[in-house]
Amino acid sequence: VQSRRPSPPAAPPDAETLQRRAAADPGVIGFGGGLPADVLFPRAALTAAFVRAVQRPAAAALQYGWPEGLEGLRTQIAERLRRRGAAVAPEEVLVTNGAQQALAIALQILCRAGARVGVDPETYPGALDVFTARGLVAAPLDGDVRALYLMPALSNPRGHGMDDLARARARARRLPIIEDDAYADLRFEGPAGRPLLADDRERVFHVGTFSKTLCPGLRVGYLVPPPRHKARALRWKRSADLQPNTLAQTIVEDFLGHQDFDARIVKLRRYYGRKAARLLEALRRELPRWEIDEPEGGFAVWCYPDEERPELDFLARAVDEGVSFDPGSMFRGNGAVTPLAVRLCHSSVDEARIEEGVRRLARAWRRLAGPGARGPRARPASPGPGRTNAPLRR
Amino acid sequence: VQSRRPSPPAAPPDAETLQRRAAADPGVIGFGGGLPADVLFPRAALTAAFVRAVQRPAAAALQYGWPEGLEGLRTQIAERLRRRGAAVAPEEVLVTNGAQQALAIALQILCRAGARVGVDPETYPGALDVFTARGLVAAPLDGDVRALYLMPALSNPRGHGMDDLARARARARRLPIIEDDAYADLRFEGPAGRPLLADDRERVFHVGTFSKTLCPGLRVGYLVPPPRHKARALRWKRSADLQPNTLAQTIVEDFLGHQDFDARIVKLRRYYGRKAARLLEALRRELPRWEIDEPEGGFAVWCYPDEERPELDFLARAVDEGVSFDPGSMFRGNGAVTPLAVRLCHSSVDEARIEEGVRRLARAWRRLAGPGARGPRARPASPGPGRTNAPLRR
Repeated sequence: VQSRRPSPPAAPPDAETLQRRAAADPGVIGFGGGLPADVLFPRAALTAAFVRAVQRPAAAALQYGWPEGLEGLRTQIAERLRRRGAAVAPEEVLVTNGAQQALAIALQILCRAGARVGVDPETYPGALDVFTARGLVAAPLDGDVRALYLMPALSNPRGHGMDDLARARARARRLPIIEDDAYADLRFEGPAGRPLLADDRERVFHVGTFSKTLCPGLRVGYLVPPPRHKARALRWKRSADLQPNTLAQTIVEDFLGHQDFDARIVKLRRYYGRKAARLLEALRRELPRWEIDEPEGGFAVWCYPDEERPELDFLARAVDEGVSFDPGSMFRGNGAVTPLAVRLCHSSVDEARIEEGVRRLARAWRRLAGPGARGPRARPASPGPGRTNAPLRR
Repeated sequence: VQSRRPSPPAAPPDAETLQRRAAADPGVIGFGGGLPADVLFPRAALTAAFVRAVQRPAAAALQYGWPEGLEGLRTQIAERLRRRGAAVAPEEVLVTNGAQQALAIALQILCRAGARVGVDPETYPGALDVFTARGLVAAPLDGDVRALYLMPALSNPRGHGMDDLARARARARRLPIIEDDAYADLRFEGPAGRPLLADDRERVFHVGTFSKTLCPGLRVGYLVPPPRHKARALRWKRSADLQPNTLAQTIVEDFLGHQDFDARIVKLRRYYGRKAARLLEALRRELPRWEIDEPEGGFAVWCYPDEERPELDFLARAVDEGVSFDPGSMFRGNGAVTPLAVRLCHSSVDEARIEEGVRRLARAWRRLAGPGARGPRARPASPGPGRTNAPLRR
């Protein structure tokens, strides 16, 4: 199905070009990208942390550091994991440049080029980037694979936790597991639960980050590898870039020491929960035929539009209307563009602009999909408990 | 030759253990590590930059960014390279986590496991770390190699620039060249010269950093790959850790925009030049039989003691005496401990403690090496121009 608009330019822009164009235009309401809300960045506290850091004798925050990261920060990370049931010592924690580097190091240790890694049908695009760069293959979780890449606490893009049965099934495979815990603190209904790490130290590479709960620009994440892989992980970190950012680590360490981080997380959960509810409501009103996967937490809502259309056409049309999103193929190991799906992130959109964003999206969709997707229909009287549009298509 | 002190512990500590122990003890005068002087960290200007960054609307300094780095920073890097004769556009610059990541990405693109890379007989240990991690082999520059790793502006550990003949010879190999420019701004006698990049865009991967001239804790470096490798370098950067640190980039960009960076570099060159002279003088007085390679710039002096002794014994003895250094084997691709050599960094030692550090080193050496290295001898009346102890052993 082609656009009915004037003919497109000779080489149509790809998704990233469209997303960059959208991101550079403040008039575009950006449901793409998975960015945390900048209004929640604790600017004053971070400034205080910075000032304390550079005023210390020798300004160690500005100097070289050891490859494993700051001891005080590793101690705080270990303590937070211990409170969730995982007996981790500070010396078992390796600070990394965000969760992405932790993931890249784990995959480097576990997989040679050509290896298959079990993932959800839709998964974190950063993981797929590492697969592509290293010649790894995304495969179904129950297939013949070298390792599993899981988000047990809360998945991206769908925003669901793994239940006990799914966890037991994954552990029963007796395979190495990369546990991506990035969104664990952002479950709307309660604190982060027990990580897989707590029950399987020998097989689990636990990956965490402060990007979602503090701010991503600091790039502070961490890896807890199985003890026997610790030395190798450290060697990879050192050879990759010597050490994690000293300044950013010092700021995070100071922040955790001076602020009530748990209170902050409660505030974040409420804020994102409220925005997710607002986005869901607008979607059900404006695009009632779409199949919507109601999330348990996180930054986004995963949706299936009610007809198949080329996703790049939809994205281009959406950007024309002043709204953007993440096309579903980004999250699929094989890059499949069907079934048509979109990830809509409420996280970095002003609360007051969410409804307008969805209206623009609905307009773009109606212009692309035509009569079959024409107008809003009345919201069902009762959406029922739990997922409104369950069962999911897949 | 064994220590004459009480018997050592069952498992003698390795070099890194000794160096970490030394670094943690403020009583030890640390000639090891290659750290810049913290007294020159521009704390006030960096604080002003931080405050400006977090006060901007949306606090983009704390948010996610694009994998290639901030456009404003890339523009400033390109401009500085253009002034040295290399016609580089901002979009050809990739910001990295320090020079180390730039180097790791270049090697990732150029070399498969097993490949041989041509290096100086003594070279940057971070490069050797990447070789080890990736299964590459350090080989002589004139051997059969896949690529050359060079420090044309100023080498580490020796602190010499490549002359025109050496540059011409390297280029005549028509091999890919990784040009490590980390110390280029720290030549005692004048500004950084023309990089190899200026004359060979198709073959040179240019690696630079602000770690030596601003501060290392920010971890801001850069890579200018040959244009045809740009997309691949960017993919590796993205898969490794998504993007460079936004906060650190914003601070460096702001610093370059608000401060006279060239004036700062002149100040650094004078400061380190003065300290190098002080270290050289103390070495010639206290350890007159050592062979000393007088550097043209940088943070360190490379020396050959006058007798062969196990370097770990010497390091352990030195730490006992309250002084540390980098053992020569760190800088050798094959890890050879002979000929015995040490790198002494004046950079992060208080000026007033340099003489005392060398006295301790001389004591440690005399205790280890015995009569052949006994006392200071009178300094020769005139050291002559240029290198005092030329010709070098190798």
